[in-house]
Amino acid sequence: MRTGGAVRGSDANAFIAQNGISQCNSGHRRGQISVVGIGPGHLSDMSPRAREALVAAEVVVGYDTYLELVRELLADKEVIGTGMMREIERCQVAVDQAIAGKRVAVVSSGDPGIYGMAGLVLELALKAPADVRPAVDIIPGISAVGAAAALLGAPLMHDFAVISLSDLLTPWEVIRKRTEMAAAGDFVIALYNPKSTRRVSQIEEVREIVLRHRPAATPVGIVHHASRPKEKVVLSTLADFTKEFIDMFSLVIIGNSQTYVKDGRMITPRGYRL
Amino acid sequence: MRTGGAVRGSDANAFIAQNGISQCNSGHRRGQISVVGIGPGHLSDMSPRAREALVAAEVVVGYDTYLELVRELLADKEVIGTGMMREIERCQVAVDQAIAGKRVAVVSSGDPGIYGMAGLVLELALKAPADVRPAVDIIPGISAVGAAAALLGAPLMHDFAVISLSDLLTPWEVIRKRTEMAAAGDFVIALYNPKSTRRVSQIEEVREIVLRHRPAATPVGIVHHASRPKEKVVLSTLADFTKEFIDMFSLVIIGNSQTYVKDGRMITPRGYRL
Repeated sequence: MRTGGAVRGSDANAFIAQNGISQCNSGHRRGQISVVGIGPGHLSDMSPRAREALVAAEVVVGYDTYLELVRELLADKEVIGTGMMREIERCQVAVDQAIAGKRVAVVSSGDPGIYGMAGLVLELALKAPADVRPAVDIIPGISAVGAAAALLGAPLMHDFAVISLSDLLTPWEVIRKRTEMAAAGDFVIALYNPKSTRRVSQIEEVREIVLRHRPAATPVGIVHHASRPKEKVVLSTLADFTKEFIDMFSLVIIGNSQTYVKDGRMITPRGYRL
Repeated sequence: MRTGGAVRGSDANAFIAQNGISQCNSGHRRGQISVVGIGPGHLSDMSPRAREALVAAEVVVGYDTYLELVRELLADKEVIGTGMMREIERCQVAVDQAIAGKRVAVVSSGDPGIYGMAGLVLELALKAPADVRPAVDIIPGISAVGAAAALLGAPLMHDFAVISLSDLLTPWEVIRKRTEMAAAGDFVIALYNPKSTRRVSQIEEVREIVLRHRPAATPVGIVHHASRPKEKVVLSTLADFTKEFIDMFSLVIIGNSQTYVKDGRMITPRGYRL
């Protein structure tokens, strides 16, 4: 692998942004996929750049729940909603549509680069032959963890680790080891996919691991549906937080050894002497 | 500390959003501070909610470099730019202005909750007596690490740790321990404040620590000034990345054991079988 010193500058990005669909040597209209981070939910949290990419798209692909969040922007589009389709099939449809010459947007909630669709779309696009390979542009969004932190106060003000507890694609042993290391390093720990109807024991194991390194009173914040109609914020402690309602739409933030709660806000101090 | 089960729901947030400045019992006009995440740089990456908070403010406080990024929105404001003022003084000015009844916005680049101004403003506001304590609203933004990841490809698609190498407020021993733990846990590692003119040895030490856990060919991405005019993206390897130019405006992302580069894009696979 020869990667040292490779440079992609702003000129290249400006070109992609202005042209979107470029011509390759064969004269075939080269496809373009934008993986669009729509943010945590409400349109007021979606960047203008993400909005423009959706408006410019001919085809919009996404999980039905997320398409619903941006429905008012999709009136004149070919919309491929895929409630039941698996993620790989959904992203492959996007790649195929782009190869067919369409300008495609893939909707991803939060930041598409954090457990979102950015990686899968890139991986599938890069499997296409070079002469038809679509250009892929990743448009960042406000992340679920950032939105949750803002509602809680300022829990991520110091070094933090982000861990998904979903063991569908990752062995539980890997996730447990990461939890051990994050706890030992006194990282603030943000948990995606903390619990599902099927998967209930892992969050209890995380609690036990972190309790070996931090006091029982360590603050834990739980945010449900940030920036969406059912938004709810709960403050608890490391001892008790697994007694609260937690599901796949929850984001859990465990404080580090310095985190405190005052006046209902969860704060990890940066270290200023005040 | 009694925090179990405390709830802040969407009703409370909607109230704050709609009213901004509320009346407390004494009849004194209670101040409001919005800590506004303006995103990584370009206005097209700033959310409508952040823009509205800036437009609604009477007083805007921030570091001069960041105020410059949103200058076109500040025409009719009292702007308190503080190139030389220290962070504590700057945030205290914001709190004092809010206590005096002004509607204040504190500008923070990226996401204000990630090494930004959210924590300091909250801490200072909470030191004010309860009867004049300003309401503080944190408005999330697209983070520097999210913007950098999008330019690189999809390096954060699996569990990651975010570490600041600045030892101004944190002992180097704590930072080193966290780097050790993140490396041992096979986290993708994102480094804020990786190097300054004064502080040059720490990034070399990080390289040595991670090299004990990962191959020399592990991809490392370096992004300078994401979403700003001088934006530049460099791909390197764990063996070589410290030979590249790195400063306080750089964000460094070190891949995990699965990260690869193809066609100029840095990708950490989520684990799908493709």
